[in-house]
Amino acid sequence: MVSSLRGRNLSESPIRHLIPYANEAKAQGKHVFHLNIGQPDIQTPESARQAVKNLEQKIIKYGPSDGLPELKGVVANYYSKFNADLDPSNIYVTTGASEAIMFALLACCDNNDELIIPEPFYANYLGFSHLANVKIKPVTTTIENSFALPSIESFEKSITPSTKAILLCNPGNPTGQLYAKSDLIELAKLVKAKNLFLVVDEVYKEFCYDDEFTSVLSLDGIEEHVIVIDSISKVFSSCGARVGFLISKNKSILSSVNKYAQLRLCPPHYGQVLAIECYKNGQAYINSALEEYRLRRTILFEELGKIDDIKYYKPPAAFYNMVELPIEDAEHFCKWLLTDFNYDNQTLMLAPGDGFYYNKALGKSTVRIAYILNQEDLKKAIHCLKLGLLDYQKNH
Amino acid sequence: MVSSLRGRNLSESPIRHLIPYANEAKAQGKHVFHLNIGQPDIQTPESARQAVKNLEQKIIKYGPSDGLPELKGVVANYYSKFNADLDPSNIYVTTGASEAIMFALLACCDNNDELIIPEPFYANYLGFSHLANVKIKPVTTTIENSFALPSIESFEKSITPSTKAILLCNPGNPTGQLYAKSDLIELAKLVKAKNLFLVVDEVYKEFCYDDEFTSVLSLDGIEEHVIVIDSISKVFSSCGARVGFLISKNKSILSSVNKYAQLRLCPPHYGQVLAIECYKNGQAYINSALEEYRLRRTILFEELGKIDDIKYYKPPAAFYNMVELPIEDAEHFCKWLLTDFNYDNQTLMLAPGDGFYYNKALGKSTVRIAYILNQEDLKKAIHCLKLGLLDYQKNH
Repeated sequence: MVSSLRGRNLSESPIRHLIPYANEAKAQGKHVFHLNIGQPDIQTPESARQAVKNLEQKIIKYGPSDGLPELKGVVANYYSKFNADLDPSNIYVTTGASEAIMFALLACCDNNDELIIPEPFYANYLGFSHLANVKIKPVTTTIENSFALPSIESFEKSITPSTKAILLCNPGNPTGQLYAKSDLIELAKLVKAKNLFLVVDEVYKEFCYDDEFTSVLSLDGIEEHVIVIDSISKVFSSCGARVGFLISKNKSILSSVNKYAQLRLCPPHYGQVLAIECYKNGQAYINSALEEYRLRRTILFEELGKIDDIKYYKPPAAFYNMVELPIEDAEHFCKWLLTDFNYDNQTLMLAPGDGFYYNKALGKSTVRIAYILNQEDLKKAIHCLKLGLLDYQKNH
Repeated sequence: MVSSLRGRNLSESPIRHLIPYANEAKAQGKHVFHLNIGQPDIQTPESARQAVKNLEQKIIKYGPSDGLPELKGVVANYYSKFNADLDPSNIYVTTGASEAIMFALLACCDNNDELIIPEPFYANYLGFSHLANVKIKPVTTTIENSFALPSIESFEKSITPSTKAILLCNPGNPTGQLYAKSDLIELAKLVKAKNLFLVVDEVYKEFCYDDEFTSVLSLDGIEEHVIVIDSISKVFSSCGARVGFLISKNKSILSSVNKYAQLRLCPPHYGQVLAIECYKNGQAYINSALEEYRLRRTILFEELGKIDDIKYYKPPAAFYNMVELPIEDAEHFCKWLLTDFNYDNQTLMLAPGDGFYYNKALGKSTVRIAYILNQEDLKKAIHCLKLGLLDYQKNH
């Protein structure tokens, strides 16, 4: 008895599929620096964890399918700082951004519809598109061009009668790029002219180190087109709480999302209790996290500068960097780091780059680095990478 | 800009779509007895809520995609009481049974494959089949026959080359039926002969009032075919925690489920902490909940006996009952109860029966009653139903 073809054909997560090798390395007593996954080492806000401890409710009940009203209210308020005028009814609380992505694809696209995404992109867009039977049309961006938003012409060229939406990640995972307001305004015009949805994953919006972030929710005239994905996971270092958001002003989209939301009953209650306190009193926490990541970005940039023959750039936002290595098969290298490499009883785990591409060949020599470790560990990890690369090149 | 056709075509939840009318009734000061949703009023185990309060973890991190190892371990142990010999690797922790159902359908069936389900069935099977592009072939059961498992011949007749699985809910939602071991053994033979998966939603297995429950995980020779869905929601009155399980020994299924699980990263952390304590020390709690529901079942049965011209039966398990009312349009009646009926400033909310049928016409006169209220409220609610019916019949 074999599983469905779609189950067998689904790609493994490039972020997680090497975990068994990492576990094996740990079992052998090696320390593994995890730069593979966007799991910050910063503490979840203490007051939010305390809010969960203080919960006096005696029945952990089903909540509303769209989320707790109090949470929807504080999130609507929070968006005013991004010049977005939201009503709580525009907001659906989801089980992480993951579920919001799935709902967005299901609500925008029918089977075999097309979705345009700049690549490299967050690997799980591929999986959710597969799940939702949506075809990805990638528009390639390059490290030489700092992964900037592709030209309007290149988007236009990818549009067919089956195109239903453009999906962006801004700030970018895995690239760390940040799209300029002027570029987004141009794209908004295209989206309007071609009657497309514009889905933007903005989960990294609080981490912009050089320029200001522009939410597509603040742009005039495309309210009917915009769907925003958000989450507490990264900004409040609460990945395990599984609380995200789907935000839109389009009533038809909201009506469909409502049905998908009812289908899975409700988002997790405890995570929502945590999230309410995060948004109520989180600004100081956000400021301090931003400064910490800014420092880490500098360290990563400096440390990468000590490695020969790699291509990298200084990402303006998020906490990722795509790096091109002087090797042919980054997947093999990442696995080798876990199985064969050892420096002072340490090694590191990276995410092979090809998992972030539709055209796998384009990412063959790249890796994604998440700079989510404290400064000292980050230095050690990149030093490991440098030595690992030298060792690997000698032997392969 | 309109949503996808599939989003627009998805049915609304029969359990939840009347909620706006209930909210309106409450806003007018009416008390609404909720018999529409399987949300028990029994407290979540105190020691489990305390375990969440005691959590000292400073970062609410991503966990493993398959769930916390400790939870998988205690769940594997728990199943020994159902004569199922499980290894933790057979168990995937999911975000409620809802997600487990979705994963099971995706892993068993490709687009346009067929799934046989005895109807009436849990309404969300319809929604998840729609989401997964799987066609439902219903095999109808009737209240006259106590919603017993259909004959092997009727299953056989529904099998086509596209059939991939049979989906059962045992004990039954919305029927409260319990399938006998001998019937399950016969079905197991069919499943084996026809090379089908047998997916069984066993979330109500702790609530059997007359006879013993048989898990399909305890049947010999069909290990490759069986997928079980489970959840803490009902048994531990923890619906809002969103913790469920997908259990199988089929390696191909597990490999596909693993990829879907990685796609959504991990199940909610707090809910898993709650669940660990539930399974560790929950037997006394389960025993006392069982006795409470047994009493409620008796009360419901007695109170329904006071209403003229309805068809009902005494369900052997779960906490639901399908009741046939002497009216033509139960949907209209259920809405009317909320908008127009008032007895002593009280009314009740029921789930219209047609939402639990593939062939909607078959459920037109029925409602699902969830007996999840305390004994006194349950009496009041059914008294309301009696008066509401009389009033409705006079006026329609």
